[in-house]
Amino acid sequence: MQRAAALVRRGCCPRPPGPWGRSQSSAAAEASAVLKVRPERSRRERILTLESMNPQVKAVEYAVRGPIVLKAGEIELELQRGIKKPFTEVIRANIGDAQAMGQQPITFLRQVMALCTYPNLLDSPSFPEDAKKRARRILQACGGNSLGSYSASQGVNCIREDVAAYITRRDGGVPADPDNIYLTTGASDGISTILKILVSGGGKTRTGVMIPIPQYPLYSAVISELDAIQVNYYLDEDNCWALNVNELRRALREAKEHCDPKVLCIINPGNPTGQVQNRKCIEDVIHFAWEEKLFLLADEVYQDNVYSPDCKFQSFKKVLYEMGPEYSSNVELASFHSTSKGYMGECGYRGGYMEVINLHPEIKGQLVKLLSVRLCPPVSGQAAMDIVVNPPVPGEESFEQFSREKESVLGNLAKKAKLTEDLFNQVPGIHCNPLQGAMYAFPRIFIPAKALEAAQAHKMAPDMFYCMKLLEETGICVVPGSGFGQKEGTHHFRMTILPPVEKLKTVLQKVKDFHIKFLEKYA
Amino acid sequence: MQRAAALVRRGCCPRPPGPWGRSQSSAAAEASAVLKVRPERSRRERILTLESMNPQVKAVEYAVRGPIVLKAGEIELELQRGIKKPFTEVIRANIGDAQAMGQQPITFLRQVMALCTYPNLLDSPSFPEDAKKRARRILQACGGNSLGSYSASQGVNCIREDVAAYITRRDGGVPADPDNIYLTTGASDGISTILKILVSGGGKTRTGVMIPIPQYPLYSAVISELDAIQVNYYLDEDNCWALNVNELRRALREAKEHCDPKVLCIINPGNPTGQVQNRKCIEDVIHFAWEEKLFLLADEVYQDNVYSPDCKFQSFKKVLYEMGPEYSSNVELASFHSTSKGYMGECGYRGGYMEVINLHPEIKGQLVKLLSVRLCPPVSGQAAMDIVVNPPVPGEESFEQFSREKESVLGNLAKKAKLTEDLFNQVPGIHCNPLQGAMYAFPRIFIPAKALEAAQAHKMAPDMFYCMKLLEETGICVVPGSGFGQKEGTHHFRMTILPPVEKLKTVLQKVKDFHIKFLEKYA
Repeated sequence: MQRAAALVRRGCCPRPPGPWGRSQSSAAAEASAVLKVRPERSRRERILTLESMNPQVKAVEYAVRGPIVLKAGEIELELQRGIKKPFTEVIRANIGDAQAMGQQPITFLRQVMALCTYPNLLDSPSFPEDAKKRARRILQACGGNSLGSYSASQGVNCIREDVAAYITRRDGGVPADPDNIYLTTGASDGISTILKILVSGGGKTRTGVMIPIPQYPLYSAVISELDAIQVNYYLDEDNCWALNVNELRRALREAKEHCDPKVLCIINPGNPTGQVQNRKCIEDVIHFAWEEKLFLLADEVYQDNVYSPDCKFQSFKKVLYEMGPEYSSNVELASFHSTSKGYMGECGYRGGYMEVINLHPEIKGQLVKLLSVRLCPPVSGQAAMDIVVNPPVPGEESFEQFSREKESVLGNLAKKAKLTEDLFNQVPGIHCNPLQGAMYAFPRIFIPAKALEAAQAHKMAPDMFYCMKLLEETGICVVPGSGFGQKEGTHHFRMTILPPVEKLKTVLQKVKDFHIKFLEKYA
Repeated sequence: MQRAAALVRRGCCPRPPGPWGRSQSSAAAEASAVLKVRPERSRRERILTLESMNPQVKAVEYAVRGPIVLKAGEIELELQRGIKKPFTEVIRANIGDAQAMGQQPITFLRQVMALCTYPNLLDSPSFPEDAKKRARRILQACGGNSLGSYSASQGVNCIREDVAAYITRRDGGVPADPDNIYLTTGASDGISTILKILVSGGGKTRTGVMIPIPQYPLYSAVISELDAIQVNYYLDEDNCWALNVNELRRALREAKEHCDPKVLCIINPGNPTGQVQNRKCIEDVIHFAWEEKLFLLADEVYQDNVYSPDCKFQSFKKVLYEMGPEYSSNVELASFHSTSKGYMGECGYRGGYMEVINLHPEIKGQLVKLLSVRLCPPVSGQAAMDIVVNPPVPGEESFEQFSREKESVLGNLAKKAKLTEDLFNQVPGIHCNPLQGAMYAFPRIFIPAKALEAAQAHKMAPDMFYCMKLLEETGICVVPGSGFGQKEGTHHFRMTILPPVEKLKTVLQKVKDFHIKFLEKYA
């Protein structure tokens, strides 16, 4: 055993499994490559190993691209090599990546982007005038009139102005200040940047960050990287994943015994849970944050993705202002948006923004300083964000096509949300709350006792075991609930509703068949 | 005093200066905005303040976008408002941002990018076939054939293959493995990611990171963020900023008394110092890293920017392999490249790559996991990186124009490097080493005793005082040497050579006139 451990430390076989149960095939390929160029006698110990590396990074987990996704990649390679499977393709329903699932980009957005990229096209008659107008405006605000220059660290000025105007419209006139807008590399970048500034202290004064369970695992990952304390509050599954302020109180009370809770993260509409918070809930949360002196982070990247006719997105900013000056002048809030979700689904451009409210002026300076170390967010992503907040308006040439495309995407998503809920709830042993918003189902699955034993024998979380089987037998890739967090003893998975309607129907039917077979097998 | 401190804590005026001496005008605007919406009676203490924030972030400094650049922005606003100055424009020679200085993008690169952005253009006869071929290949490797999908966290497969092929060609056949290539959000992202994994320990076991002085301040900023220990080794100004391995030994020996030095960072060609390392120097460094068990980071983003006829860029990877298996199978190396520099200057796209050598397979898994938390680098930046490593070749339609554009940019830079060196060395009290590579001059400036006193009275580093005066009197924005680090008692500034030749001549003449006046004033 000692010898094996020494070999492991020296990077030789046998290796322990990687961070997500690393692919055996690639590990083997690597080992053989190593043997080719390196005479074993000259091999020395590595400086950077699992033992010597940053332990906080080692502790990071990120399920959305975890072991199940590596396995999906392996299966795809096997299919390419002609290995027979009970299916012909892997369906990646693990990640909210709309265009990868066939959703077409919004034409207007790409037209403006192409014009900005290659300004010679500004002379081309095949591009509409309103797109050219947007492109000219963006380019005029860029250094050297080019997307290839760095922007200010906080983002291009006129784009921040457009974001502020968008927020003001969205929030029925509540003013937004371009000075409070920071363009980011997707929302993830904004969230991790503000958390990085917020976290401090050691021992009992380590910063506690309250996050919903289930959560989007960016939060737990960043908390781990920063060596902060994750403070879980549980959403109420029996009540459509609603957030109950009494649960926030419980979580905070318990956390105060071992850390300094300073931040409260909210995801609305919920990821992976899809609930849309009502006015009363948002008011309760804001009052709680005010009362308990918590910095609020509102992850609102799904603000355009609301499907239930009786739900409506309301921003934390708007509610905060409408609660009066005692709140609006005191509660510190950062809210986040992105080009990746909504109806445009431009994940690859890594565009996003953060709006901060009541941030101390000195902290604003610190924030810009921190952002400037990475120079600026991708300027093409900033331009994409501009089109999202400044789309064609009635009377403009592209308005009709833009509206048609937007309504088509959102209408389809609403249809698929209902379809998914209905079909899952017809399966014995699956319960699915309404998908009020966002782009995921997070159904609860019953896992029989014998399957729990089998999972334990494989040293897997029960829902990881379930999802691995689902992937191996059907090619459908979903993420186990354990990657998002869930109440002890409950099991779930997250599946996107992004495949086209007909394909989604097939997927749901396959999950149903698999589930029934699974129940029978482990009965 | 106590009352003032309490007011400061509550976010009221008077405020202490911000991280870079925050703009008074924006602070005042903010204060008045605050008064409009917030009745003072209801104002509570902020949660996030300079006192409560992450102290490691507070300690970060980043001179390239520091106080001098904020001041430049203020002056630009004043000029716009019609306030008279002894100049009509601010010339931003503080940052290596070629296109902001009027450099035109490489046509082929932008054509491919436009085709990828808006694939309808693939039918247009106004784009060359070789650009279309590149665009089709990139799109086929993207999810849903779109730049709008997330890529794999490590980057698009075919682009990593192109990078590996490029490195192999560059290094005269030394093989590169696409599996060792990680696409990044500019080089900064790669450097900070690998440092994040490398840093660990507390107290005397805190990780020491060796960096050149003068350095590019990304390094000191990331070291501060990660709470690692910065270990300075000094480049030899009297010897054209050469790296001497005896100085590495001294720095390491002293560092070992208070930390655990694990990483050695090299910038070649140098930033801000512009030296190009010769073969012997690189071999010495590699031997030293091997001997002392240091992880090597080679920042090689200026690999295309070599101007002195007797200098040649050689990659650390190539030299490592040519030193034989004892080195090539043992020394852990990460090297970095970027779309931002070279002849293309596409800073805004935030493209880059990192190649790792001898990284432990388990660490590779950890690296992908860490990268996956931010999902992927901007796909448009990845596409830009592809064109940089896979440009038109002889026989292709675009080859001639591409070569002409590339040679024009590099030829001009070489001319400007020589011009800058020559002109600076004609000024009494300025000494400038040859600009062998990169895109900056880092001249040493003599600051008379009376000016040192004046600087002290203003609580400024002497070269900050000098550069502020230069900015205020001429509109030329350069970065004080103190932002990069320099030998105690010496003073420098960094200036880019990116303005067009005629403008650069004017800039140099203005610096000369200013310097002579400065010497007279403080004689």
